[in-house]
Amino acid sequence: MSAETISVSSLAQGIEAEEALAAQLFDTLRDRSRSTLGVTRASFGEGEQMAHDLMSELGDRLGLEKRVDAAGNLYLTLPGRDRSLPAIMTGSHMDTVPDGGNFDGAAGVVAGMCMLARWVRAGRSPVRDITVMAVRAEELSWFPAPYAGSRAAFGLLQANELDECTRPDTGRTLFDHMQAAGFAPERVRAGEKQLDPQRIHCFLELHIEQGPLLVQEKLPVGIVTGIRGNLRYKHCRILGQYAHAGAEPRRSRRDVVMAGAEFVQRLEALWIDLEEQGKDLVCTAGQFFTDAKVHTMTKVPGELRFTMDIRSQDNSLLLEIDRRLRGLAQEISARRNVLIDLGDYTNARPGLIDTALHERLLSCAESLEIPHVAMASGAGHDSAVFSQQGIPTAMVFVRNEHGSHNPDEAMEIADFTQGLRVLIAAVEEIDGQP
Amino acid sequence: MSAETISVSSLAQGIEAEEALAAQLFDTLRDRSRSTLGVTRASFGEGEQMAHDLMSELGDRLGLEKRVDAAGNLYLTLPGRDRSLPAIMTGSHMDTVPDGGNFDGAAGVVAGMCMLARWVRAGRSPVRDITVMAVRAEELSWFPAPYAGSRAAFGLLQANELDECTRPDTGRTLFDHMQAAGFAPERVRAGEKQLDPQRIHCFLELHIEQGPLLVQEKLPVGIVTGIRGNLRYKHCRILGQYAHAGAEPRRSRRDVVMAGAEFVQRLEALWIDLEEQGKDLVCTAGQFFTDAKVHTMTKVPGELRFTMDIRSQDNSLLLEIDRRLRGLAQEISARRNVLIDLGDYTNARPGLIDTALHERLLSCAESLEIPHVAMASGAGHDSAVFSQQGIPTAMVFVRNEHGSHNPDEAMEIADFTQGLRVLIAAVEEIDGQP
Repeated sequence: MSAETISVSSLAQGIEAEEALAAQLFDTLRDRSRSTLGVTRASFGEGEQMAHDLMSELGDRLGLEKRVDAAGNLYLTLPGRDRSLPAIMTGSHMDTVPDGGNFDGAAGVVAGMCMLARWVRAGRSPVRDITVMAVRAEELSWFPAPYAGSRAAFGLLQANELDECTRPDTGRTLFDHMQAAGFAPERVRAGEKQLDPQRIHCFLELHIEQGPLLVQEKLPVGIVTGIRGNLRYKHCRILGQYAHAGAEPRRSRRDVVMAGAEFVQRLEALWIDLEEQGKDLVCTAGQFFTDAKVHTMTKVPGELRFTMDIRSQDNSLLLEIDRRLRGLAQEISARRNVLIDLGDYTNARPGLIDTALHERLLSCAESLEIPHVAMASGAGHDSAVFSQQGIPTAMVFVRNEHGSHNPDEAMEIADFTQGLRVLIAAVEEIDGQP
Repeated sequence: MSAETISVSSLAQGIEAEEALAAQLFDTLRDRSRSTLGVTRASFGEGEQMAHDLMSELGDRLGLEKRVDAAGNLYLTLPGRDRSLPAIMTGSHMDTVPDGGNFDGAAGVVAGMCMLARWVRAGRSPVRDITVMAVRAEELSWFPAPYAGSRAAFGLLQANELDECTRPDTGRTLFDHMQAAGFAPERVRAGEKQLDPQRIHCFLELHIEQGPLLVQEKLPVGIVTGIRGNLRYKHCRILGQYAHAGAEPRRSRRDVVMAGAEFVQRLEALWIDLEEQGKDLVCTAGQFFTDAKVHTMTKVPGELRFTMDIRSQDNSLLLEIDRRLRGLAQEISARRNVLIDLGDYTNARPGLIDTALHERLLSCAESLEIPHVAMASGAGHDSAVFSQQGIPTAMVFVRNEHGSHNPDEAMEIADFTQGLRVLIAAVEEIDGQP
């Protein structure tokens, strides 16, 4: 690296004070949102509001500009010297799944706030506005509307999502919850934009890794190459014929468990084949069940339901797999005299990572001598929404044990600090560019 | 056939009156035990008692000897000329599954009664006693004690079965129900024999076919070669690890659905292989399910439960398959980093059909020119209990559409009459032998 680059990254040096701030923020978040088994910060619930309030108070202490949009998203901004320039944005969401962990989402907002604290503490002011966004309602456990908060920010949340998505614990709609929390869902329903993509220079999101790769590879930091899109089949069904387990001959059986077993085994074989060709792919049949009201040990099973979640960074591969699966379903249905109905799918397109931003994050990690790897994001993130708006987007992953969405999430503060240093260095560099 | 054989079978000719009696009995049984969706005659419930009463009244009209044993089994006997000889017995059970069909079980008792009516109407009396037994409590839906009635008749029902098996609709034990119905469960618990195997010359059971073979082959009658025994695995379980569906790489997954799919596919391959070697075998995984409380579309599944019911006329084959399955479970568990636990099995041994009796039934069907086939019984029957007592045992199947244990059981009276003619002819021949 050139001497110049190293000097530009000076904010990333010596951030012990911010490390302590982060530890304190995580502890407070955990203390204030403990639930039976883990932590619970429901979308538009008390826990999420508490987290937003905590960030807002810190913003006040740091002297940041504050804005809350019609959907309840919080923006804390360190003003730049040239306010006409599009802002650098970072952030993530603050809700958790029920009885989830403390870090999924929160780490990205805490990282943004620690970065701004670093600027303030160093007595520096950026050229561009730097904004930390605390996004609402990212976890689908509460409302089945993907990226509700960030999509609302861009005027993309649909009226039917607001009116029809209900929170399982309250039975009330997203619209009701947004209104009861003091925001303006009618403006969201009208499609009013809370953010202008033209006014955003780039979006960076730090997040815990939700898979095991960094733990397995013994690396604190991952630099994301792309956010896997998905095909989701929520209502796959196989219809056959219940029959006497002892008396029905093999050749006249219409056995849905055997048909379903063959189907998912063929899916797995296809996956292995594509993986060997170097394609990015993961495939899951997370639910797979005979009907508890009808099935018995002594009947050939006549109905099976299952789901599929298939993800890749390459959407054309996903669509190709859908074609292959439908062919497979037809073939097995005909041969086994059953009906394999895959039903509709939803297709969340992959989130594209900006190549230049990705390379900048890599070079920052290298110059800071932080061990890292380039890797796909298997989970979806608010970043995907920014990317789909044409905003250059990139992500930093921090090592985390035991996966996410459970009370055992375990991110070490030392690892978080390494991710934070990459973020700080990258933002400082980006801000220093013409 | 010799002229003598044909003359001996004279009772099987011209049985229009018995055909009408059978139709009337089936209609009455159905009328008096209709339930929401089909007919319901619970073991030791009103429907079963009604059916026993109907047979008992018919026995009175025919002048038969009547006995009810300590377990509530009903015996109706046409006395033989030499009462010192062991009796010819026939019969079946009178209970049904909940919302079941009218013919499973009842057909065998109605056939026995029509046969005795034929003897009486013809003014003939047999050499040996001929006894029709209406067996109690054969359907496992009510009490999970296999062949409770016929095993009780031989003093084989265990105390713990009487005290621990409860009827799902009442929550009361088999002992309680037997007592409340007016019988003597304490004598059953003491192991008192209600029947002496030495006093039974043979046992013949007519039953509807529960599989589709006779319908497929367009034949009214089947002559049973053997009653399949079974291995039943009620509590198979696969333990893996729940993980993020998007973020967990294939190689570190511990996916129980993929493991279970491979396991049952390998079981099916083994089945096909053995079938091609001419072995008698059917295999069913009737229940197969991820955990409804935990599974989601977006998690790699971490726990699966399933059942297996494996049947054959050859018990050594069943035990060999158990060894193969346990090896398979180990191999797949190791390779996929899951735990496939098959748990315990129960082994109901095959019911052996007496060769001479089987051949006599075949020759009767031939001499009566009734189209028939020799076939295995896939389901278990009270006959298995008689066979295990060393009593020569055989079975006649009658064609029946749509399987059994459901309201759509459909046996034609014309087919029943063909089965009845075989039964009458065989009993007449056996009685005529020295």
